[in-house]
Amino acid sequence: MSTKTIPEEFLDLFEKRAYGHLATIMPDGHPQVTPVWVDYDGEYILVNTSRGRQKDRNMQRCPQVTLEIQDPDNPYRYLEVRGVVAGATEEAAVAHIDKLAKKYTGAEKYPWLAPGEVRVIYKIKPERVIPH
Amino acid sequence: MSTKTIPEEFLDLFEKRAYGHLATIMPDGHPQVTPVWVDYDGEYILVNTSRGRQKDRNMQRCPQVTLEIQDPDNPYRYLEVRGVVAGATEEAAVAHIDKLAKKYTGAEKYPWLAPGEVRVIYKIKPERVIPH
Repeated sequence: MSTKTIPEEFLDLFEKRAYGHLATIMPDGHPQVTPVWVDYDGEYILVNTSRGRQKDRNMQRCPQVTLEIQDPDNPYRYLEVRGVVAGATEEAAVAHIDKLAKKYTGAEKYPWLAPGEVRVIYKIKPERVIPH
Repeated sequence: MSTKTIPEEFLDLFEKRAYGHLATIMPDGHPQVTPVWVDYDGEYILVNTSRGRQKDRNMQRCPQVTLEIQDPDNPYRYLEVRGVVAGATEEAAVAHIDKLAKKYTGAEKYPWLAPGEVRVIYKIKPERVIPH
């Protein structure tokens, strides 16, 4: 059974170091999938990427995206979230990637920021959430 | 740099209990993503599913699929494999899911086969392999 919000009993996935597997659509219609750090603000799933990356370009062009988030403690427990890109912002995006780095690596700051790199937060509105 | 085959230095991912995250395309163009057990025969990536599941229906309709395979020992090491469905067979598909169950769970047989369930092996031909 699908819902339009994250079920309460799956919110723990956003506290754990659970990776999201983000599918976006390439210009030729082929899906692209990459692992991502995920955050949830109670309404949107937040994904942080860099300007110019394939997923950034894909999400600018095609807002239909899907995230599969797998429980690191039980690979057969996962959420599939089909959603739409509801917005993107560069504001506070470096502070946000630092927060995610802390959650996923324990580091105080995101260690891989390159000179000139522009971070961007994508807000993804869940449309269909399928818990497994 | 992308290749058309799995780079030798990433073949270990198919020996480990590394999950694939398979993206297929829904009828409305939205991606669908689910975790899958993966096998590789040297030419095709093999994914085993059941007749009637969403990914089965999607792969019958649209052959453009992508697998992201993440190293369980290093989440920042992964393969993205964009490919096409090159064939599907029910022949020996139960023996194949038993082999995958052995690899991923240690069990001698796939423990979740339902009465009447028809297993099917999808052969996915890599077209663009991007190692990270």
